[in-house]
Amino acid sequence: MILVIRPDATLEQLEHIIERVRELGFTPHVSRGESRTIVGVIGDENRPGAENLSAIPGVEQVLRIMKPFKLASREFHAADSVVYVGKVRIGGGSLAMIAGPCAVESYEQMDIIARYVKAGGANILRGGAFKPRTSPYAFQGLGEEGLKILRDVGQKYDLPIVTEVMDPRQVELVCRYADMLQIGARNMQNFDLLKECGRTRKPILLKRGMSATVKDLLMSAEYILAEGNHDVVLCERGVRSFEDSTRNMLDMSAVPNVKVQSHLPIIVDPSHATGRPDLIPSMCRAAVAAGADGVHVEVHHCPEKALSDGPQALLPHQFLDLMGDLRRLAAALGREFWSRPEAELVP
Amino acid sequence: MILVIRPDATLEQLEHIIERVRELGFTPHVSRGESRTIVGVIGDENRPGAENLSAIPGVEQVLRIMKPFKLASREFHAADSVVYVGKVRIGGGSLAMIAGPCAVESYEQMDIIARYVKAGGANILRGGAFKPRTSPYAFQGLGEEGLKILRDVGQKYDLPIVTEVMDPRQVELVCRYADMLQIGARNMQNFDLLKECGRTRKPILLKRGMSATVKDLLMSAEYILAEGNHDVVLCERGVRSFEDSTRNMLDMSAVPNVKVQSHLPIIVDPSHATGRPDLIPSMCRAAVAAGADGVHVEVHHCPEKALSDGPQALLPHQFLDLMGDLRRLAAALGREFWSRPEAELVP
Amino acid sequence: MILVIRPDATLEQLEHIIERVRELGFTPHVSRGESRTIVGVIGDENRPGAENLSAIPGVEQVLRIMKPFKLASREFHAADSVVYVGKVRIGGGSLAMIAGPCAVESYEQMDIIARYVKAGGANILRGGAFKPRTSPYAFQGLGEEGLKILRDVGQKYDLPIVTEVMDPRQVELVCRYADMLQIGARNMQNFDLLKECGRTRKPILLKRGMSATVKDLLMSAEYILAEGNHDVVLCERGVRSFEDSTRNMLDMSAVPNVKVQSHLPIIVDPSHATGRPDLIPSMCRAAVAAGADGVHVEVHHCPEKALSDGPQALLPHQFLDLMGDLRRLAAALGREFWSRPEAELVP
Amino acid sequence: MILVIRPDATLEQLEHIIERVRELGFTPHVSRGESRTIVGVIGDENRPGAENLSAIPGVEQVLRIMKPFKLASREFHAADSVVYVGKVRIGGGSLAMIAGPCAVESYEQMDIIARYVKAGGANILRGGAFKPRTSPYAFQGLGEEGLKILRDVGQKYDLPIVTEVMDPRQVELVCRYADMLQIGARNMQNFDLLKECGRTRKPILLKRGMSATVKDLLMSAEYILAEGNHDVVLCERGVRSFEDSTRNMLDMSAVPNVKVQSHLPIIVDPSHATGRPDLIPSMCRAAVAAGADGVHVEVHHCPEKALSDGPQALLPHQFLDLMGDLRRLAAALGREFWSRPEAELVP
Repeated sequence: MILVIRPDATLEQLEHIIERVRELGFTPHVSRGESRTIVGVIGDENRPGAENLSAIPGVEQVLRIMKPFKLASREFHAADSVVYVGKVRIGGGSLAMIAGPCAVESYEQMDIIARYVKAGGANILRGGAFKPRTSPYAFQGLGEEGLKILRDVGQKYDLPIVTEVMDPRQVELVCRYADMLQIGARNMQNFDLLKECGRTRKPILLKRGMSATVKDLLMSAEYILAEGNHDVVLCERGVRSFEDSTRNMLDMSAVPNVKVQSHLPIIVDPSHATGRPDLIPSMCRAAVAAGADGVHVEVHHCPEKALSDGPQALLPHQFLDLMGDLRRLAAALGREFWSRPEAELVP
Repeated sequence: MILVIRPDATLEQLEHIIERVRELGFTPHVSRGESRTIVGVIGDENRPGAENLSAIPGVEQVLRIMKPFKLASREFHAADSVVYVGKVRIGGGSLAMIAGPCAVESYEQMDIIARYVKAGGANILRGGAFKPRTSPYAFQGLGEEGLKILRDVGQKYDLPIVTEVMDPRQVELVCRYADMLQIGARNMQNFDLLKECGRTRKPILLKRGMSATVKDLLMSAEYILAEGNHDVVLCERGVRSFEDSTRNMLDMSAVPNVKVQSHLPIIVDPSHATGRPDLIPSMCRAAVAAGADGVHVEVHHCPEKALSDGPQALLPHQFLDLMGDLRRLAAALGREFWSRPEAELVP
Repeated sequence: MILVIRPDATLEQLEHIIERVRELGFTPHVSRGESRTIVGVIGDENRPGAENLSAIPGVEQVLRIMKPFKLASREFHAADSVVYVGKVRIGGGSLAMIAGPCAVESYEQMDIIARYVKAGGANILRGGAFKPRTSPYAFQGLGEEGLKILRDVGQKYDLPIVTEVMDPRQVELVCRYADMLQIGARNMQNFDLLKECGRTRKPILLKRGMSATVKDLLMSAEYILAEGNHDVVLCERGVRSFEDSTRNMLDMSAVPNVKVQSHLPIIVDPSHATGRPDLIPSMCRAAVAAGADGVHVEVHHCPEKALSDGPQALLPHQFLDLMGDLRRLAAALGREFWSRPEAELVP
Repeated sequence: MILVIRPDATLEQLEHIIERVRELGFTPHVSRGESRTIVGVIGDENRPGAENLSAIPGVEQVLRIMKPFKLASREFHAADSVVYVGKVRIGGGSLAMIAGPCAVESYEQMDIIARYVKAGGANILRGGAFKPRTSPYAFQGLGEEGLKILRDVGQKYDLPIVTEVMDPRQVELVCRYADMLQIGARNMQNFDLLKECGRTRKPILLKRGMSATVKDLLMSAEYILAEGNHDVVLCERGVRSFEDSTRNMLDMSAVPNVKVQSHLPIIVDPSHATGRPDLIPSMCRAAVAAGADGVHVEVHHCPEKALSDGPQALLPHQFLDLMGDLRRLAAALGREFWSRPEAELVP
């Protein structure tokens, strides 16, 4: 950390600054430039209290040098992490295709959709039982009944399942049914939920918040990792912007950006990012080409009757076409979607 | 709601659209223009299923006419709502000054700060016992011990207290100590927490999320109101933007914007919005002049040793100066900060 | 266009609204719903005066139905447009690779870089002679001397050249040297410059402004098209956002989004979008997979001595590797970078 | 400037870094911390070439210490600058009220509006003769004819006039008529226009670009100042954001933020910032309370027939009410709108 001293700071202020740096357990290193004096602060800048150095009179600005996350960082763990969801491998060249409807509506609905996505080659089935809806009057999900349906249909088609958990009080219940827990964008900084999920041994799908930086996303992953759960898959799903012709703005550069800074796998969700079925296929292709470890898309056989987010779902035949394209593309890039035989996979 | 039909839609598609509109319980009203056919959809557009009309083949866009919130709307309740926190009146010309440290650190710390803010004329005391911190390694608050300190100090200085609740499991505990519950920006769309707070009879301070529109904020208020709790005070605290010299961007126009659309009181928090003590006083003045029902500022007697967010706190003497300015300004605008004698106030 | 009438509008106001609609040459079509009356406004909503309908007392909101651009729209011209720069074809399956340094610095510098980018397979050479710099004290470009160098080096390596024009007064001069004129992001709404470029017969590379929506970009293209110049290539180069680890946020979904709404070719510039050489190759791959008609990258043999934007340039060997990847990817997608023999190409 | 060295940098790389720092005329100052080595770079970091230090292999990041603007900075000129437009004083406690229609439409229109704004107490008259319109099909302004009308009406009501200049080729013409030149938001980084305006001796009203940071705005002011024109008034007029219920987001904190960093006066334009007459009065009050040196509002006697931006104009009676409020508020804050007698004013 580096403290830039105000040009009008008094000598007394500078001495006080140096004293505080020492009190906090750091070693100060003063350097006088032409227009500014700076104080190098040697030590772990993530130490509590460090943030307050900017509140000392005479300090103009504090420049951080280190990343604020540790377990999530590439420096801590150089190789790409691989996360298993059931027998599906995410990362290290294996791609996830997480597909299914926005919400679990009924056994029949899930059965129809699961058959299609399995046929297309999805390897993880999704569906929401607890739904975070902007309006209190909108469909809020089937709850445990939805979890049961999702589990049964997942077993029928031999697909592990992922579903959202919104409340720390639901974690235990959802763990009884799901193979992977999703933390939604609106809860990316619901720290009690992050901690509770960190205490489980289920893999976590952590979606980027609508106004979270890549650093914020990695800090939220750090909450889960710090509780001892290392199976975290990140998900870029678009951020808020001024562009009004898409639901959010897909930050595709987050894929390589995360990979430079972290060892965790990252997938892309163009359904929520764009909200437009006409843009989803090309954004899936771009995600795979960008180096994402998978994609996440919503599929519904009758979007006009869906109970949640119908307008952004792909139709089954669109999904089948998309998977054909993605398989060819992945092959050209030396990667693949398919889960390998169990014997080979489990470490 | 209005459906704009694609120019290349077939007659069969149009008939299907009209049929679906009827099935959903709306009355369709077709109108052919020069370049587009439109279908007026008569009925309550907040009805479940309405959102899916945009998924019907042949529909180009869906234009909403009505606001998606009801209980929070000015149409539902024409007069300004007034919310009482203890004997302090917020709204209807009475201004709240919510002041105190970011986090409760100790009895001594709270006692010193409360004495100053009381002297300056604050009418509500704040302090965090459960802290939402970006880093899992940062100080997370004193928990119940902090709540006790806050209550005791509040009673000593005859100031009602407000403190943040982050987890639905904490609501009952926090209710035992606090006069007002704060829902932080990161939890503005933590819907389970909104519902749980809606079931209490404590006034709620609902902070705007970092990427929430004014409509989103009012939809989150609707969650609380829909549970039967009508004592909601909104708080503008800045949104994420590209401007990098302030912590967030204070959307001052949210004050009159909320007042046009809703009857709920709204206050402004320049501490979190700007993160810069040198900008806070002028933003407090602007908030009062803009018509806000109060302001929220962080105060600390020794920011450089604060356990949380020290750099954005005002010093006690800065707070005293600010309150002098604000009192004069409020007087010029025909408003006041002071809580009136109880007899007069309670309705 | 549809006018939503305020619920408290008087009958007299409604009559005045209808009269104004007629005066402006539109046909009104009144429809009463449960909670709102709406007035359909039949006629060309891009007609002057139409925007003011929202200023009539009693009008709550105005909903637009039509796109505000015409010549740039897919409705006006259904097939993909193809633009020729010299003998290089952009669009219709032919990809552009526009490469070169940020600024022309000297003949030697351009000669070294052009040799590399030609070897890698770039088909258009770039270099700035007039530089829009945030600081008045930064290198502003070599001016006409730079244009001469760029032209000479382009001819030596048989590469058409593109260079930025910043001022309407420079258009004539730049046309004497360049094969394609670039309008930079900061000038996307410099309407006099757009008109002046629209009057030339040179193809135009129009970069998206830092806070321009896709619609704004197409409106700026419309300015050029309306002057009679139909050879416009759009360029996504990132927009401003809160993310602080990249220079801008690359809106990859703009590629398919433009293609849905417009017939114009669009390329992607990951150099300016990310500002980080470690992210550029994967964003180039993603752009090609997303369906872009080309990419634009900055290359410099000695970035640490570049006179402008060195830190975001690829090194020559990085560029060669990237081109190998992109050629393989393009082949897998049935597209190619190479300009075909002239006889085949010219229409 | 401080260079943070990558933990994996070689000794050879570090030596090369130090050599480059010296070659660029800086003095290096190496300091080894626990996890990173840093190199302090002593010298003027705005020197050309300094930006490229981040491109040297082994450099992880470059931290700037100094502000990139000089003449615009508070350090360069400690006292508040005062700018005269005709006999009107802006800054130093004197407030500007710039009012008038968006566009000059006719002598009659300007005459009616000028009479009202003069009566209300505006001290500068505005009106556009050259209009930057998003659509090429919209009214583009009356050109020189509009300038003549504006000058004549300004003289009739003894009001100095301000009008926009969009193109360097118009500067001379506009100077013949106007007392102050406005550079619009879309042209804030039209550097040739900035330079051309910097060469005149007219005061300049420089509007903040829609995605410009406060630093960017001050850098654009620096372009004008560097040409020798010191009479620059800045204008906050809202920036692009995700909020869709206002035209832009008014960044009110830019007012004190500019005042901390710069000596230049700054005014606020709530008309363009909000686009909503129902929010303009409260935002004008907030601007004055925030410490702005004036406000800028659009006024039209018949917004529904305006040729440009009618929907955001105040009606004359709304303007008169607003001015009454603002005068009282300004008085309470010890400031005033009125131009003093000429003899007193001219320095």
